[in-house]
Amino acid sequence: MSFFEMSSLDELSDGLANLPMFPYFEIAHYIVSVLALREQQGAIGLSRISPLACWVSSMLHCFGGAVLSGFMLAEPPIAPLSNSNNILLASIIWYLVFYCPMDLVYSFTTLLPVRVVLSAMKEVTRTWKILGGVTLAQDKYQDNLLIMIAIGWARGAGGGLISNFEQLVRGIWRPETNELIRMSYPTKITLMGAVLFALQETQYLSVEKRHLMLFYTVFTVVNKTRMMLTGSSSFPFSPIEWFLFEILFMGRFPSYTLSLRQICGNFIIGNGTSNRGRAATRTATKECKDNRHNCPSSPVRGDRGTRRAKDDDTKDSKKYK
Amino acid sequence: MSFFEMSSLDELSDGLANLPMFPYFEIAHYIVSVLALREQQGAIGLSRISPLACWVSSMLHCFGGAVLSGFMLAEPPIAPLSNSNNILLASIIWYLVFYCPMDLVYSFTTLLPVRVVLSAMKEVTRTWKILGGVTLAQDKYQDNLLIMIAIGWARGAGGGLISNFEQLVRGIWRPETNELIRMSYPTKITLMGAVLFALQETQYLSVEKRHLMLFYTVFTVVNKTRMMLTGSSSFPFSPIEWFLFEILFMGRFPSYTLSLRQICGNFIIGNGTSNRGRAATRTATKECKDNRHNCPSSPVRGDRGTRRAKDDDTKDSKKYK
Amino acid sequence: MSFFEMSSLDELSDGLANLPMFPYFEIAHYIVSVLALREQQGAIGLSRISPLACWVSSMLHCFGGAVLSGFMLAEPPIAPLSNSNNILLASIIWYLVFYCPMDLVYSFTTLLPVRVVLSAMKEVTRTWKILGGVTLAQDKYQDNLLIMIAIGWARGAGGGLISNFEQLVRGIWRPETNELIRMSYPTKITLMGAVLFALQETQYLSVEKRHLMLFYTVFTVVNKTRMMLTGSSSFPFSPIEWFLFEILFMGRFPSYTLSLRQICGNFIIGNGTSNRGRAATRTATKECKDNRHNCPSSPVRGDRGTRRAKDDDTKDSKKYK
Repeated sequence: MSFFEMSSLDELSDGLANLPMFPYFEIAHYIVSVLALREQQGAIGLSRISPLACWVSSMLHCFGGAVLSGFMLAEPPIAPLSNSNNILLASIIWYLVFYCPMDLVYSFTTLLPVRVVLSAMKEVTRTWKILGGVTLAQDKYQDNLLIMIAIGWARGAGGGLISNFEQLVRGIWRPETNELIRMSYPTKITLMGAVLFALQETQYLSVEKRHLMLFYTVFTVVNKTRMMLTGSSSFPFSPIEWFLFEILFMGRFPSYTLSLRQICGNFIIGNGTSNRGRAATRTATKECKDNRHNCPSSPVRGDRGTRRAKDDDTKDSKKYK
Repeated sequence: MSFFEMSSLDELSDGLANLPMFPYFEIAHYIVSVLALREQQGAIGLSRISPLACWVSSMLHCFGGAVLSGFMLAEPPIAPLSNSNNILLASIIWYLVFYCPMDLVYSFTTLLPVRVVLSAMKEVTRTWKILGGVTLAQDKYQDNLLIMIAIGWARGAGGGLISNFEQLVRGIWRPETNELIRMSYPTKITLMGAVLFALQETQYLSVEKRHLMLFYTVFTVVNKTRMMLTGSSSFPFSPIEWFLFEILFMGRFPSYTLSLRQICGNFIIGNGTSNRGRAATRTATKECKDNRHNCPSSPVRGDRGTRRAKDDDTKDSKKYK
Repeated sequence: MSFFEMSSLDELSDGLANLPMFPYFEIAHYIVSVLALREQQGAIGLSRISPLACWVSSMLHCFGGAVLSGFMLAEPPIAPLSNSNNILLASIIWYLVFYCPMDLVYSFTTLLPVRVVLSAMKEVTRTWKILGGVTLAQDKYQDNLLIMIAIGWARGAGGGLISNFEQLVRGIWRPETNELIRMSYPTKITLMGAVLFALQETQYLSVEKRHLMLFYTVFTVVNKTRMMLTGSSSFPFSPIEWFLFEILFMGRFPSYTLSLRQICGNFIIGNGTSNRGRAATRTATKECKDNRHNCPSSPVRGDRGTRRAKDDDTKDSKKYK
């Protein structure tokens, strides 16, 4: 705080809090979301065979949070369609990313500097979405903390949380993966934000809302940019997370000797074990791989098929160079 | 128009617009829907093992549109059950089609002339359903064209659009197929109707509603009858559809050289490529078939399993002779 | 009735009808539900890898009925979260069952006498839940019998009916099983209860509500206790069920000669054919097993994977000794 004068902090916060999301930040969000779809395996083929399924899938990437929170609150999941300007914008971006002659738009937006800027702008919209969800839930459920967190989370990370059903639109079904079992970075960061904003709104956290918005936004933007530039996908709070996990959920497993079969029965352990499970499954992984064919009810249907369908954010340009 | 006097056209339109759907046309709709279910692979076995699952599945075939549009508008998906007369009628038909001694009802209704008449009558109900959806959405979302089309479409072709979940009730799961990826004839014709009626309701299309109803109904009935009698399943607007597709979505693929892997990764190409994708994938298909076992993440789990679960309408009697 | 004086029956009924469910009976319900989850294959591994997914799954076991009936009535499926006390209680129980040091809680609650008492208490909550669903539907749909039964059933047996989607949270997908195709004991008994209470509420059944509550509760408790103590899982009304089934749904199959392929196409027949289908498929089973690899579109993906994910209630302590 030493390098900010309080007045300039306030000015910055106010400036950010009054920043209009529409159209520039929304456009960045749509571009990054549609790019993430396009970079999923099979999406190009789908765009060629069924533009309609591709469009629906794109809209779920762009408006997944609104659809999911609408579903959870028993409001029409179709409501995002009623926002004509946003839908038009998202549709134009979908068209340009998938069908632009010479693939100019895709080539341009995946240039590293362009993509870094777009991704950073997208992170800014996350703050607004979480806050929108939290205040919506607060109105409906009188300061019920749990629901505020749930709706804030759904709004901010909806695309990831509904990824199973978004994939179904594209004819893909990967039941063995979902964002609850292995949270991706954006899902985690959104959950953290939802908790913070919910605590702020219910006065448990005595921070001014505009300051929290500023800090959260700066944190997500800086972190996202760092991740894209370094190609790292580590979660900055992994040590804390791991420490808490160790204290809370390890009582029964003091010596890391989980039965191989129990883990192997339901999870694909090889490539992408979450940070949380890594230590405990380190020893198990090797055996499990060797014995995979003996695992009785593993839903794994071939190694290749188990690569995760990631939330849009985890796809930074590094990976696709 | 030359062979109609205007007055007689008006009379015909009025006559049609005032035609009560209940009970005769509704009955035809239920019979055709339940027949379509019964002709799906495994449905007989299901009716024997679990009449309840069979009944639920039949109701989803009969009232799928209402369930889907209810879900999209956050109205109780269970509401169709409250219409006791219709449910009773549909249940009686379900019982007769599946469990009638000597299979008399099934044998009778699948006689070609009977089935043609029933299918034609079912097509008439489509007009009413689409229109019902469009006006419902218009009331709720003040002339929002996109939502009007979506709800009209959902109402008219709901059974097909929710087929993945309807199959789940029967213990079947075919994620690789859905009506968005490869639209069947009734889904396409319903979408077209929804667009027309939505344009009419919002005054973009300056036609009288009753005339549009007449033309659309005559078109669907004639076309359906033609398809059943000739055994063809071609879509009458394929050339236009293909032309539009070529212009809009082929910019990036001028020489039809889609990467084999991209298409092969997610779609079953062999038997049933949609009209749209056919030309572009013609060359790819052969290779793809040969290389199927090399396709890394194909969700195909055996050729036989990939036959489509069709919307009720595509099952005309020809196929089952 | 001879051993009850009418006055004492009334007293008993009143006593039961005024019994508060919260907290003791609710606690028993949560414990039995979470135990049922813990005893599912892979649940231990999940609790280790993703406590959040494990918690969500537990909540769906505990509040599945409310979630499902909320979804069916277009009320927020998230609403159960707003009941802070219940959620807190269920979460504490979830934590203790899965993460208690030395596994003390699990070891204690799975002692046969403790589990029998808890299961019996859970059965008592069933009556309240069914009745709650029935009256809720009655308010909304003016004595519509079908909806009252459906909502009462959903409330009372929600956890089982949504088991497909509850499993999806845990990364498991077993489309070939659901409670509609092969109803488990608690699902059947709940459906029976929903029918009885709906008939009572609409005056078709001239019994006092408190008496019906007493009889139904005593019946379920006694029956559940009997099942747990004897290790039997037979449905007490199987003969009646089978008789009705024979009369209603066997018209077309007088000689038990269902086509092998039809049944084999969609169902796993071996281990767990429902009572209903048993007689008819007796002959088919053997052939089907031998010919399984020839069954064209069987969704069976390995014998082991087809073991059913049971409703919580079917897991009595016997099985895990």
